[in-house]
Amino acid sequence: MKLGCCYFPEHWPEEMWADDARRMREMGLSLVRIGEFAWSRIEPEPGRFDWGWLDRAIETLADAGLTIMLCTPTATPPKWLVDSMPDMVAIDEQGRPRGFGSRRHYCFSHQGYREQSRRITRALAERYGEHRAITAWQTDNEYGCHDTVLSFSDAAAEAFRAWCAARYGTVEALNTAWGNVFWSMEYRSFAEIDPPHLTVTEANPSHWLDYRRFASDQVVSFNAAQVAILRDLSPGRDVTHNFMGFFTEFDHHDVGRDLDVATWDSYPLGFLEQFWFSEEEKTAYLRQGHPDIAAFHHDLYRGCSDGRWGIIEQQPGPVNWARFNPAPLDGMVALWTLEAMAHGAEFVSYFRWRQAPFAQEQMHAGLLRPDSADAPAADEARMVADVIGEIGPQEIAKAKVALVFSYDAAWVYGIQPQGQSFRYLELVYEWYSALRRRGLDVDIVSVDAALDGYSAVFVPTLPNISPAWIKDIEELTCPILIGPRSGSKTHNLTIPEGLAPGELRKLVPITVTRVESLRDGVVGEGDGWTISRWIEEVETDLSPELALKDGRGVVFARDNIRYCAAWPDRSLLDLLVERIAGEAGLDLMDLPEGIRIRRTASHIFAFNYAAHDIDVSALGLGEPVVGSAHMAPAATVIWTIL
Amino acid sequence: MKLGCCYFPEHWPEEMWADDARRMREMGLSLVRIGEFAWSRIEPEPGRFDWGWLDRAIETLADAGLTIMLCTPTATPPKWLVDSMPDMVAIDEQGRPRGFGSRRHYCFSHQGYREQSRRITRALAERYGEHRAITAWQTDNEYGCHDTVLSFSDAAAEAFRAWCAARYGTVEALNTAWGNVFWSMEYRSFAEIDPPHLTVTEANPSHWLDYRRFASDQVVSFNAAQVAILRDLSPGRDVTHNFMGFFTEFDHHDVGRDLDVATWDSYPLGFLEQFWFSEEEKTAYLRQGHPDIAAFHHDLYRGCSDGRWGIIEQQPGPVNWARFNPAPLDGMVALWTLEAMAHGAEFVSYFRWRQAPFAQEQMHAGLLRPDSADAPAADEARMVADVIGEIGPQEIAKAKVALVFSYDAAWVYGIQPQGQSFRYLELVYEWYSALRRRGLDVDIVSVDAALDGYSAVFVPTLPNISPAWIKDIEELTCPILIGPRSGSKTHNLTIPEGLAPGELRKLVPITVTRVESLRDGVVGEGDGWTISRWIEEVETDLSPELALKDGRGVVFARDNIRYCAAWPDRSLLDLLVERIAGEAGLDLMDLPEGIRIRRTASHIFAFNYAAHDIDVSALGLGEPVVGSAHMAPAATVIWTIL
Amino acid sequence: MKLGCCYFPEHWPEEMWADDARRMREMGLSLVRIGEFAWSRIEPEPGRFDWGWLDRAIETLADAGLTIMLCTPTATPPKWLVDSMPDMVAIDEQGRPRGFGSRRHYCFSHQGYREQSRRITRALAERYGEHRAITAWQTDNEYGCHDTVLSFSDAAAEAFRAWCAARYGTVEALNTAWGNVFWSMEYRSFAEIDPPHLTVTEANPSHWLDYRRFASDQVVSFNAAQVAILRDLSPGRDVTHNFMGFFTEFDHHDVGRDLDVATWDSYPLGFLEQFWFSEEEKTAYLRQGHPDIAAFHHDLYRGCSDGRWGIIEQQPGPVNWARFNPAPLDGMVALWTLEAMAHGAEFVSYFRWRQAPFAQEQMHAGLLRPDSADAPAADEARMVADVIGEIGPQEIAKAKVALVFSYDAAWVYGIQPQGQSFRYLELVYEWYSALRRRGLDVDIVSVDAALDGYSAVFVPTLPNISPAWIKDIEELTCPILIGPRSGSKTHNLTIPEGLAPGELRKLVPITVTRVESLRDGVVGEGDGWTISRWIEEVETDLSPELALKDGRGVVFARDNIRYCAAWPDRSLLDLLVERIAGEAGLDLMDLPEGIRIRRTASHIFAFNYAAHDIDVSALGLGEPVVGSAHMAPAATVIWTIL
Ligand SMILES: [Zn+2]
Ligand SMILES: [Zn+2]
Ligand SMILES: [Zn+2]
Repeated sequence: MKLGCCYFPEHWPEEMWADDARRMREMGLSLVRIGEFAWSRIEPEPGRFDWGWLDRAIETLADAGLTIMLCTPTATPPKWLVDSMPDMVAIDEQGRPRGFGSRRHYCFSHQGYREQSRRITRALAERYGEHRAITAWQTDNEYGCHDTVLSFSDAAAEAFRAWCAARYGTVEALNTAWGNVFWSMEYRSFAEIDPPHLTVTEANPSHWLDYRRFASDQVVSFNAAQVAILRDLSPGRDVTHNFMGFFTEFDHHDVGRDLDVATWDSYPLGFLEQFWFSEEEKTAYLRQGHPDIAAFHHDLYRGCSDGRWGIIEQQPGPVNWARFNPAPLDGMVALWTLEAMAHGAEFVSYFRWRQAPFAQEQMHAGLLRPDSADAPAADEARMVADVIGEIGPQEIAKAKVALVFSYDAAWVYGIQPQGQSFRYLELVYEWYSALRRRGLDVDIVSVDAALDGYSAVFVPTLPNISPAWIKDIEELTCPILIGPRSGSKTHNLTIPEGLAPGELRKLVPITVTRVESLRDGVVGEGDGWTISRWIEEVETDLSPELALKDGRGVVFARDNIRYCAAWPDRSLLDLLVERIAGEAGLDLMDLPEGIRIRRTASHIFAFNYAAHDIDVSALGLGEPVVGSAHMAPAATVIWTIL
Repeated sequence: MKLGCCYFPEHWPEEMWADDARRMREMGLSLVRIGEFAWSRIEPEPGRFDWGWLDRAIETLADAGLTIMLCTPTATPPKWLVDSMPDMVAIDEQGRPRGFGSRRHYCFSHQGYREQSRRITRALAERYGEHRAITAWQTDNEYGCHDTVLSFSDAAAEAFRAWCAARYGTVEALNTAWGNVFWSMEYRSFAEIDPPHLTVTEANPSHWLDYRRFASDQVVSFNAAQVAILRDLSPGRDVTHNFMGFFTEFDHHDVGRDLDVATWDSYPLGFLEQFWFSEEEKTAYLRQGHPDIAAFHHDLYRGCSDGRWGIIEQQPGPVNWARFNPAPLDGMVALWTLEAMAHGAEFVSYFRWRQAPFAQEQMHAGLLRPDSADAPAADEARMVADVIGEIGPQEIAKAKVALVFSYDAAWVYGIQPQGQSFRYLELVYEWYSALRRRGLDVDIVSVDAALDGYSAVFVPTLPNISPAWIKDIEELTCPILIGPRSGSKTHNLTIPEGLAPGELRKLVPITVTRVESLRDGVVGEGDGWTISRWIEEVETDLSPELALKDGRGVVFARDNIRYCAAWPDRSLLDLLVERIAGEAGLDLMDLPEGIRIRRTASHIFAFNYAAHDIDVSALGLGEPVVGSAHMAPAATVIWTIL
Repeated sequence: MKLGCCYFPEHWPEEMWADDARRMREMGLSLVRIGEFAWSRIEPEPGRFDWGWLDRAIETLADAGLTIMLCTPTATPPKWLVDSMPDMVAIDEQGRPRGFGSRRHYCFSHQGYREQSRRITRALAERYGEHRAITAWQTDNEYGCHDTVLSFSDAAAEAFRAWCAARYGTVEALNTAWGNVFWSMEYRSFAEIDPPHLTVTEANPSHWLDYRRFASDQVVSFNAAQVAILRDLSPGRDVTHNFMGFFTEFDHHDVGRDLDVATWDSYPLGFLEQFWFSEEEKTAYLRQGHPDIAAFHHDLYRGCSDGRWGIIEQQPGPVNWARFNPAPLDGMVALWTLEAMAHGAEFVSYFRWRQAPFAQEQMHAGLLRPDSADAPAADEARMVADVIGEIGPQEIAKAKVALVFSYDAAWVYGIQPQGQSFRYLELVYEWYSALRRRGLDVDIVSVDAALDGYSAVFVPTLPNISPAWIKDIEELTCPILIGPRSGSKTHNLTIPEGLAPGELRKLVPITVTRVESLRDGVVGEGDGWTISRWIEEVETDLSPELALKDGRGVVFARDNIRYCAAWPDRSLLDLLVERIAGEAGLDLMDLPEGIRIRRTASHIFAFNYAAHDIDVSALGLGEPVVGSAHMAPAATVIWTIL
């Protein structure tokens, strides 16, 4: 695994570049990402390119022996470009233009901006596409960041109408698919269709779902246009894009298909603070991040691009954008880096080389402080470089457990939660966490992924199930656990004929006749476990495998397939994981709270996410090759697989 | 009492209609409401009517022996109509148009849309006005739903200016009435007046109050225009409109005056979740609704239309629109239906016949599931039909207790709460609840209602009191309890000469010299009771009937009239109800928590809102004719009045 | 000290004026403020002035022996004026116009309105500038109230561009100063610059800081234009403007420089409710206000205008604008008034004479009730007038302790809090409170103020420190305590070369290498004290004076200067105040909770803010000249300094 960093030569005097490059190498880094937001320096005026500084920066880095990932700068079109076509900006759901002054101020559907995006990509690729040091490209930056996937501009409306026409052929077909008869919402032509915002009350959920799919497709085609140019003009280089954490606004499997390598931007402390974790978790893991945050994304994004992935932005210290911004414990940066290696990362690149003293991210730490002294992360990077040297390159094998993830599902529940605590990402994360707490390695896969070869398959929920997917599942013999609301919707977000679980009824003969969403604090009591948030009434000849004390069935099984008709608590998840592991012949571990395990083909890694010492000798993994079984907070320990 | 349902033939294949109608009859239903949102099917293109399907639907239902309530479809103008005059939509308080894509996308003040509303009403009335099966009409649907009474469009501004001119004659009169001198807000002509939104800080409360009155009047006249056409072209049929729960945006007494029958849409579980109830109440009554929600509205709306009323939409299972959507306990649908009967409903119609598998309300239960099987409510409807058969039609008598309700009051306190916990609806509801907890039947009446004949009168608060009302009250000899802030405002929301309680001082010689609103948790301690939220300083020669421990008077009485100068807690309300009942010769009952009682002319009903069994034998009402005195959760029991 | 009131003759029938004036005098008042919002009465139509009523009002008041403060009415331009140039209104951050219908509906940058402001000021000054009774002028009213300092109008954008050009000279200089290279935010000309709102994510903090400075400068120049006219046409009269509480949207030191007297509007109960105080404090001081609220502003605004200051609006009873509006305890109005005297006020004027029965502030108490009877505050005013007579005029001396306050700092932390609980005003207030709890008198001074002569100097935080300030500090020998984040930013809100604390490193040789913001509930434990919210990692050869139990240094000292590298709790502040007082030879008092002390040149005042009796005999101040050492709630006691 390579180490790297994100570097912005345009932020620093040219005199500093060579020494920066030298220090990168000294620190054990071999990859550098540049160019991300540099449009105003590359093309300071319409059509006038200033390549000089970038030529020199690339040479300097290359001369130091660094390989370079070059970015297209399309996340930050300069002011002159925006002024030349003011309608290129996105329009927010409230109808306001999202103007110049920060970044991502463009609408994915604007044809003029798409032309500009291709033009600047082509200009960069023509100049540097065959440069010896350029080994990879990043398209744009963090598609969708700051809520920029959805736009409600005229350009978007126009493109959406065309998308609908292409999808449905006739407006009658669309009216039927969406159920537009419901409130006299029928259209006479595609031209009558608007985006689903600023309606008096909620718009038709089918309308919203198609708008989300359309918006995702716009990201895909925007990206694909850059990729095509890069492949053409820069053959043999990897193309990537950097995904974000807990972010489902576009379909990353779809974008991933056009990439060679999926990368993501890993900020565990910020993610802990900003998402649904409890106050207790936010305090317990204040300076570590919750132990499954990074791993979850590693396994998710590894499934987005044929297994090749990396971290292009790794948090090296406090950040600037969360409500509160503590510093990582000593050792966490190394832990996060090594954990990525254990999950098969090709590289981990720190964001950023040196903390910038100006502008929006001046409070975001780097490997260097703004005064160029080493920040604490620098030594951790060096330490990791040593470990990499010691244990050598790591191969990873297919995991024994698969977990199915669907962006479409995230949209469905976002549009129609039916109970405000039904959060798709949280449900999936809880299931993933239940597996990881017992030491299992997991592949998070798309709905299209082949599932044969896995010892167990977990589907936290999948609202819209196709006959083809059922056929694939039918052929599996391993234990499969499928969660609530699965099969409850058609492809167009309507209720399937014969009710939920729709196509799934072929495998598990049950009918969900009624559902309840439950307010916080209301639970259904099982034997040592509870359900909350969501419970279904099931009609079936099966007798439930697990039921509430009041007799209501919760888990129903036929053959190798279980269906869980409620939102399970951690105890119920533990129970199900144990039963399934028993059936699948999977070894479970009893891990102390805060410890996580991950295996490569050759090594076993353990990570201590707790803020206190933990001795893991009892795991019986023998003598470590790196670290000690008596683990300090934020420690990593590595054993060879015997 | 008739049972019925809401049916949307346009949502289902024509082949299903006859069987649906047959099953309705089998289930004991005799009334069906149709046509509510069908404009796009009735008039698919401007001026081209497609009556065929509706003709056939009406015949099919009529042939099955059902009587029909037909609706005007004006809540959902089709897209082609909106596109033909885009300024017909309302403008929200933030200045944004409220566009097509859901429902209620029109401004009540738009003259063009008013013309369309009359045109489509006339077209329907001409075609079906004399049809044998059409026994009733519903105008539009749920006026004001989704916050649609207020609009800030140009059409509304124009209409408001005319309304002001009509009301005040001269702009000088308006300036004086509103106190516009205050911040140089004086107008030189009516043309200078704008709606009171988007001001730098709050607009003049008098301005707001008149805007609310104007907006309410616009609803009244919009409705009246449809009613006039229906009366003309469909003689002998009842005209109704369906009101909502906890909704005070227009004056329902005013709209009710133009109707034959008031109807309302009863969703007790959703209302519990969405309104001010405590966490404890929301949990205790999760699947029942708070025990006074339905009754409160029955008694309120019965007072809006000369006593004739019904439920046109009764919740039959989980709904889709609350934050959380649990299912009713078994028996609750029957309980709700029978409780409506006990309050004098002419009909209860379930919303809806069959759950729609598509569009916005696909998660809203019906009597049938989307797959046409019976939903749980179906059997409860059958059971209720049996009970109706057993005990026969119920007459109700005037209650012994009147509670005065004023929409104007709701607006006054909404505009000028003075303390953020002063909520008019909550105050009235608490007083109503205090009466119901002791087994009293209550009429909720308007300020104009004749009060003679009642044994006791409760006025939770009435800010603006006219001399005429005082004269009426003066003639009463029964005990009267009048709550805080009564008489504190003139008709224009200014402070009356001589201070609060204004005209009321003629009856109770007190002067409110100063008021306090109190933050949550701050109380004034009485002897076994407290006050909170609001307390007044009273200057008077009377000695208080009840005072705080610190000596501050809270209840002041002269002759038969008491004034309560604070927001009372439940204990103080109980104490006052007991004293007044003693004076009025009213029998109070000691009801277990969760039990409610209601009498018709011939029967006594008891309802168990608790989630556990309760034995009510101790009430000594003898042998029930329906049900058992050992009441299960959600049980109803009925005795004959001896 | 004079007493006075705010009077609106235009609100009352002319017949009442003479008696009102007579009663003011009887109550002990000698100053009356008028004219504040009277534009529509002064100039009812464009260019037509109606001076008659105002001439008569002024004569009536003058004849009664009252001196008059006359206001320019520019906070409330009439409707005809707004209609004549609709673009004069401010545009809010969301892009919406802030229209007519309340007050402050103008943009400070609109040239047309500036011309109108000068025109009406000149008209008033020409007519009354030399009137015998006019002794003072107030410009406008409460600049910035209702969030009106910032506007995003075209006029503001245009003015901002000019401001930038004047400040930076070249756009390249601006690009460099702001770090616009960061996200390709570079401008090619000043004309390309927009206000920093409606950006996709946060705009550049340097952009925001300059926008805030620009907006503050617009207030300064708007005010200065009125002042110039008044000085010209009304020589010898004091010019003032009324500031507000806890309000930092413009630089009051800058505005104050153009005034003769700073005044402020003191509403302690509303401020307690609306600001950051804990639930416990809000309950304990419900009817008193927190004991440091009024004093904090007295000392702050005294520092804004060369020591001359007064209260022009003193809360006399419940107000209308807080979430909850309780009444002051009996005695509080007198306490507040006498406390102002103890801090050197030239006058205290109650808002308002008589409660208005109409419009927005009808629930705001006055000295008289709307029915003209005395409100409770009237007697308290009389009592204060007596005390003033008894103890005579009070001189105040420079305090021994200085606390440095910076509006620029408030903007910096508002723009870039880095942790959401880092609130500048709260930090400063806590430090001020720590001093007051030990009986110290404090001068709150600007960054430019001369600090020599003080026995101790406290700088809660000062992000941007100039070499000149360092030089001034260097010359001081008294103990100085400087708080976290000081010196952490350059003048343009970037990180200084050599890191925080920037220039301060010359005095205290430390480097802040990393900072953490901490979520609520997370603390660092010291010995009997804690830190929270914010902590810095410090690199230094100094050994810390105080450290956390884990060894992390918190307080670092060299010579007479201490730096506190965290947000201290009250215990740590107490400890630091004790140490510094010891070093500075300051006497500390042990004051019971709720008691505050303040000295004039001749007297010592004690104020009981608690809601219960407190005996302060133990303070050993001897026999009071006013009041008793056994203090009732809201009591004031005064001793002569021996
Ligand atoms: Zn990033
Ligand atoms: Zn409805
Ligand atoms: Zn004011």
